[in-house]
Formats: sequence, structure tokens, C-alpha cells
Amino acid sequence: MRLSFDEIQSEIKRVFMKYGLTEEKADICARIHTESTYDGIYSHGTNRVARFVDYIQKGWVDVNADPVIEKDCGAVKVINGNMGPGILNALYSADRAMEMADQYGIGMVGLKNTTHWMRGGSYAWQAAQAGFIGISWTNTESCMPMWGSKVPGVGNNPFCIAIPRKSGPIVLDMAMSQYAYGKLGVYRLAGKQLPFPGGFDKDGNLTSDPGAIEASGRILPTGYWKGSGMAIALDLAAAAMANGKTGADLDREGQGSCTGCCQIFIAYDPYLFGEEEEIQAKFDDRVAAADATTPEKEGGHVTCPGERTAATRARNLAEGVVVDEQVWQQCLDLAAGKMDTKDIASTCILDNMKEEEKK
Amino acid sequence: MRLSFDEIQSEIKRVFMKYGLTEEKADICARIHTESTYDGIYSHGTNRVARFVDYIQKGWVDVNADPVIEKDCGAVKVINGNMGPGILNALYSADRAMEMADQYGIGMVGLKNTTHWMRGGSYAWQAAQAGFIGISWTNTESCMPMWGSKVPGVGNNPFCIAIPRKSGPIVLDMAMSQYAYGKLGVYRLAGKQLPFPGGFDKDGNLTSDPGAIEASGRILPTGYWKGSGMAIALDLAAAAMANGKTGADLDREGQGSCTGCCQIFIAYDPYLFGEEEEIQAKFDDRVAAADATTPEKEGGHVTCPGERTAATRARNLAEGVVVDEQVWQQCLDLAAGKMDTKDIASTCILDNMKEEEKK
Repeated sequence: MRLSFDEIQSEIKRVFMKYGLTEEKADICARIHTESTYDGIYSHGTNRVARFVDYIQKGWVDVNADPVIEKDCGAVKVINGNMGPGILNALYSADRAMEMADQYGIGMVGLKNTTHWMRGGSYAWQAAQAGFIGISWTNTESCMPMWGSKVPGVGNNPFCIAIPRKSGPIVLDMAMSQYAYGKLGVYRLAGKQLPFPGGFDKDGNLTSDPGAIEASGRILPTGYWKGSGMAIALDLAAAAMANGKTGADLDREGQGSCTGCCQIFIAYDPYLFGEEEEIQAKFDDRVAAADATTPEKEGGHVTCPGERTAATRARNLAEGVVVDEQVWQQCLDLAAGKMDTKDIASTCILDNMKEEEKK
Repeated sequence: MRLSFDEIQSEIKRVFMKYGLTEEKADICARIHTESTYDGIYSHGTNRVARFVDYIQKGWVDVNADPVIEKDCGAVKVINGNMGPGILNALYSADRAMEMADQYGIGMVGLKNTTHWMRGGSYAWQAAQAGFIGISWTNTESCMPMWGSKVPGVGNNPFCIAIPRKSGPIVLDMAMSQYAYGKLGVYRLAGKQLPFPGGFDKDGNLTSDPGAIEASGRILPTGYWKGSGMAIALDLAAAAMANGKTGADLDREGQGSCTGCCQIFIAYDPYLFGEEEEIQAKFDDRVAAADATTPEKEGGHVTCPGERTAATRARNLAEGVVVDEQVWQQCLDLAAGKMDTKDIASTCILDNMKEEEKK
């Protein structure tokens, strides 16, 4: 089933309005979910609609809340998200960071008391498309063991860097765990091994067996000890820079999935001291050099992060995006008020699996 | 052989003065090398003295150059390192970032035309010890294949985050390659496998065999595709934010080892909007929660990055640090002018191996 951008956005908007968002807010949130879908990131697009509704119903997201600037000091603002929709808080904060970057060269927003921002890369793309270098990250509840531990002790704390490029932004969007949990289930159900080791079995051996990792709960930090260290550093920095909650605080509150988390948005104007044309040529030269390196396999293509996303988006915009029929039916049912709270909660798990199948 | 901090610093200072640094500059550089040694990072301490001299002799480091502020705009400065000693340029830049953070809440320095900063973590520690959150990174020449390539196409671009903590800073200091090349040689010579897969063999299979990785040249980006993506994003961001050279530019110049690279120093005042005592309590709580997670092995200890370093430093300050006799003799010979240029160049390789043995 292929759907146009407008078809998806307007249906998701209907869902969000059904569950209490104003038309304007619903429209913006639906746009971000639709963009993620069009970029091939179903996990935070169509497949995340039911879960967002679930969180509203659980009281984890306050659809009526708006972000408030609590503190303002030069190139830094601390914004209280007041537990409003994460997408709206994040967009608002990223905009403020860019405004400050216009004035001071660099701008930083620490956003606290916010909720899941869906796809972290959305705000990095936003910065790059506005001509800024964007750096952002979030803390989350613990979902990954620290290196040397066998129980979850730190979040996967996604980290993003975006570089504006006329020929297509370079956007890193990287969680600190090697694979998402959803991915493990998809591989297990398909009877497949992960392409690379993704965790430890119950005896502490590195393994590519998804079922063994699910059984032990020991997903692998990206880069072994390195991702574990970066995750805890990002958590501390986020909580300090936003004057908000750490992952340990979120764990104690136990609401899960970034409820009450901190996010950081740094924007930098890359043309502050150099000619735009010259800087753009430098970016293109660097990316071309990386992409021109000999591929591992004959006929392969080396690419920088974001390049494939841009191509995916362009193709989907031209042809319409393939959306899973079952997921789409859920959106239709949600918009029509045909699903009860329990249905919605159980749907989320299914969606998470479907998301990963697409990748 | 155990040596005191002063013994090491004063001997390295003698070496650096012998090769043209003023007494003041030699003293500062020697202090940083000695601190790295005391933290157990021999690779950028005693074992890096000969290589620094080698670079001076090759004309890659201009001992007479000083950093100059080229551009200044609010919370951002661009500094030209003029190919002076990397340590001095980096210290100067980190100080300017902290000054701006005092004024604007956040400060960023883009340093261009600089040389190897030795241990990246030095400047993160500097920020944390001054009470700031520090974020810094460097670009480098290509030493690692991009994901999907079989030849070097991107640098290992170390990235650091430091969190000030009265009970000991948390400091992440993370290169984008999983293992340093030197480490592979040490394991190969010892007839050992790497503890975790560290690259690909010539047939493209993931392997822990250090010799097979050396033969293919395919060291592993940390976290497979993730470290590759982060490395290229850091490279682009550094070149843009410092208005300087990319890794591709460094590759074309071919001088190696960060000669002419860009470095970024971001400082943030974590007490800007919160009470120091409260923020410190939050840091301690977060670290304690991570450290208290069940260790993988009975009797094991889970720690956050930097905690072990602080313990190592304290122990070495109390007892004196163990220094390899051969490496130390090189320092003495260099200070006495007993080594010619060729000896120095060949010594560097030996030092690099010895560095890794210690770890």
C-alpha cells in the first residue's frame, strides 16, 4: 500500500486531534511522524502513532502543555517542556537555539521535563535545513547494561550531528545501543542471526543470536565499553545543561520511554566566519572523498550518514511511501475512535516489531 | 622504574627546551605529557616525547608559533594555531571557551591549523577541573575505513565529554576506531587474540585476530557503521566550526598525525541556573546508580569513564609512576642531544608499541 505524504499526514493529524491536540499542534506532530515515515524510519513514523496515543492516555504526555523559557542567559536558554508533546517541545527548543546562534554564533537550549521526541534526527535535519550545524541528544531511562554489568543501568541516549549541505545534509542519528530491542525480535522471528554481534548471552559470551540476547537482556553498547561511557556522559551533561532529570531519576519514576527526560539542542552558524560557497565546497569535497573510497564489495557504495535518507525521501515523495496495511488500519481505527485503551497498548508492541522489519 | 612527577616533568622539559621550546612552553608541554603518564596513558605521555621531537624536526610543528584569535563573535572564537605545539594551542583555546562560558553560559572555540593535541582527554579534564562541562573533538587524517569500504577514508577523530564532579570528574575520551593500531601489534606479538572483534580480515570477515586486521588494514569503527558515521560528522563539523581543514585536506597534505587539523572546544557552566551543591548531588546520584548495577562477574566493579583514571592518578602520585626503562633512557638521550634524527624517527614506532603494552 503506497500513500502520499498528505494522505498520511492528514490521517495522523485526525488521530492526534481525536486524542486532544489542537488542530495546529496535531498538524505539526503529524508532519514530523510523516516525514520520518518518508525517510524510511517507520519506527518513529506511522508505527509510533498508537504508542503516542497510549502515552497520552496514561497521562505521560500532557497535550495541553506548552514549553516555557525558564532561564535565559546569553547564548543559553533552559526551557521547561511541562510534559507536553515531545515533538512540539523539541521543535520549539531547536528554533530558539538557532535564534541564539544567529545572535551569538552558537546557541544552546537545555530542555527539561519533556517527553519522547520520536526520531532524534528530526531536529538535526531541521537545523541543517535551516543552514545550521545542529548537535542534539536526549537522556532516557535505563535500557542497556553499563559495560561490565549484566543489568540495565544507562539509557541508549541518542546523539545527533547535522551538517547543512545543499546537495543533501549529512545527519548522524545514533543511539548508544548497537541494536534496538525491536530489531532483535524481528531477527529471532525470522530465524536469522544478527549481521554483527549485538549483545551477550546469559553466560557472558558475545553473540549474534537475537534470542540469546533477549533472554539475557544484555544488549551491546555500541563499541562495547565506548558506547556505555558515552551514554553515561551524555546523560550527565543533558541533566546538567537542562537543569533537569538524570536517567537515574527517570528510572525511579518508572514511566519509561523518555517521560520527563532532558534534551540538548546546540546550533552553530557554519557561515559565521567563512563564505557560504566556500564552506559548501569544503563539505562536498570531504563527503566526495569519503564516498569515493574503494567499497568492500564490487559494485558497493560508500556513503555518509544522511545521504541514503535523502535518496529514500526523494523516492518516496515521487512514488508514495509503502505503509504496512495493518499499521495503517490502526491509524484509521484510532482516528475513528474504534480502539479502546487496551487495544492501543497491545498495538504498540506489534508496531515496534513491524518497524524493524522494514529496515 | 618508578619516577616522581617532578622527575618526569623536568626531564621532558629539558628535551623540549633542547629542541627549541622556550622554558615556559617546555614546562607546560612537559606537564601535560607527565599528567598523561600519571593517568596511565603512556601513549601520550613519556612514550610520545620522541615523536613530538620527530615532528619538530620534520617541520610539522613550529615551536615558535603562537595561537592568534582570528575571529570573535559573541560566544564563538576562531583561533589560528599557526602550526604551533598542539598542547599549547589546545590549552589556550580551552581557556578561551571557558571565559566565554562565564560570560554567555556557553563558549565555543574552533581551533584551526593546529598540531597533535596528544591526549584529547587533557582538555576535557582541564574544563572539568575548572568546574565546566567540556565537549571537545579533533579531526585527523584518514586512518580507518568508512563503513562498507576496505581502505582508510576517515580519521579516528577522538571525542571527549567531561563532567565536573568534586568526587572525581567523569571524562569520556573516545576515538572512533575500536582499537588503536599500536594495540594490534602488541596483541600479535604476544600471540593473543583481541578481547573483542577489532576489524576485518582480507576476506571481509569480522575478526579478533590482530595480525589479520593489520594485514587487511581494516580496523573496525567503534560500533561498526555508527563510529564511521560519527567520525565523518565530527570531521565536517570541526572543519566548519573552525573554518579550517577537513580530514580530506589533511590526507592530501600527507603529513599525518593531525598536522594542520581542526579542534573544537565547547565549555558550559553547569551551575548557571542551579545551585552547585544540588547539581553535584545529582551527578553523584547518577554515577552511584550506574556503579551500583550488578557486575557481570562476581567481585567485579562497574565504573563510569574517568573514575578509574582518578584512582590511577592518585596511586601514582603516592607511589611514583612506573616508566619503561628503555623509553626513559630515550628521554635522557634526547635531553642530552645523544640521538640523531633517524634514531628519533625509529624510536617513535617502538614507543607506540610500548605504550599499548602497558594498558
